[in-house]
Amino acid sequence: MTDDSREAIMEATHRALREHGYADLTMQDIADESGKSTSLLHYHYDTKHDLLVAFVGYLIEEFEAEERGMAEKPAEERLREFVDWFVFAPGEDDRAAFHLALLELRAQAPFDEAYREQLRRSDELVRGTIVGIVEDGIESGVFRADAEPEAIARLVFATMDGARTRQATLAEAGYAAEVRDALYEHVLDDLLVDPERAE
Amino acid sequence: MTDDSREAIMEATHRALREHGYADLTMQDIADESGKSTSLLHYHYDTKHDLLVAFVGYLIEEFEAEERGMAEKPAEERLREFVDWFVFAPGEDDRAAFHLALLELRAQAPFDEAYREQLRRSDELVRGTIVGIVEDGIESGVFRADAEPEAIARLVFATMDGARTRQATLAEAGYAAEVRDALYEHVLDDLLVDPERAE
Repeated sequence: MTDDSREAIMEATHRALREHGYADLTMQDIADESGKSTSLLHYHYDTKHDLLVAFVGYLIEEFEAEERGMAEKPAEERLREFVDWFVFAPGEDDRAAFHLALLELRAQAPFDEAYREQLRRSDELVRGTIVGIVEDGIESGVFRADAEPEAIARLVFATMDGARTRQATLAEAGYAAEVRDALYEHVLDDLLVDPERAE
Repeated sequence: MTDDSREAIMEATHRALREHGYADLTMQDIADESGKSTSLLHYHYDTKHDLLVAFVGYLIEEFEAEERGMAEKPAEERLREFVDWFVFAPGEDDRAAFHLALLELRAQAPFDEAYREQLRRSDELVRGTIVGIVEDGIESGVFRADAEPEAIARLVFATMDGARTRQATLAEAGYAAEVRDALYEHVLDDLLVDPERAE
């Protein structure tokens, strides 16, 4: 399969999940979104399950590529952009719909070794990214030397994931932004060596 | 319906959700768990959906009753017990299974007005409980006078809900406990007027 072909299938899966959710998704939905036949999809991916496992892998690659693009920015800015990324702006219904579909997929993970393995990789990657940002900030003298990167990473990720889930499930546009503001005030601003610089 | 009969149906629903999950749950499963007939269940609840809406209401009542039982305890102890309640101990597979079923139900809420309304009530009740604990702590002089109860409540709830979801979906027993420890260290210990008292 060419890279272009793979990307077209993965982006079609993204759209189909937003449109149909996880539980009702069919190979036909993905075929319709991609303009390819179901037999071509089945040629590359035996089952819908295989395709979805590959799709979570694709999300991980996308995340890695985005993170590489950020690596040159100062730690404080990267941390803020990272946290902001969890917040859906009002009207970003597509993102909320996609998060709901992923939430259903995540709820299957305890019963599905392949999902669980991919989601653990994703989890470690996200936490590792936050750890890296905090370490950079300590090294560059912007964050306090006694900051604990691992603990901060767990706290930030759990908080923003929880906030995003409540925002998506309760359809409350401002929820995640409010949680983010509280996280800044109570946790992230405390990381700064010079709190006067906190926005 | 007598209170006993209602409680028996609600507890049977609790067990059936743990056993079968949300998506596969049938009225027959609930009937089997309760020792009642499906026709009796349908006499009280027109549909499975109506029964599940009532079930979320039942969870809310249970939570309220538990909170009333805690009201006399000191604020710091109540806050710690409240936060600890989100953490599954290793081996509490029943609680993880139930949380997964609820997660699937929550993922339906954007498309289901009755679920959404019940879940918003539940959300407000949990946050209101944390607000009340923080206010009590400020009043009794244990928590700092400038603590912001609303912001603390949003932060604590989003954090522990996110931690619980990751613990249940990734089947990682220690995850929520680690997040809780980070939450204590970075947020809750800061609330104390006398930080020496932090455990």
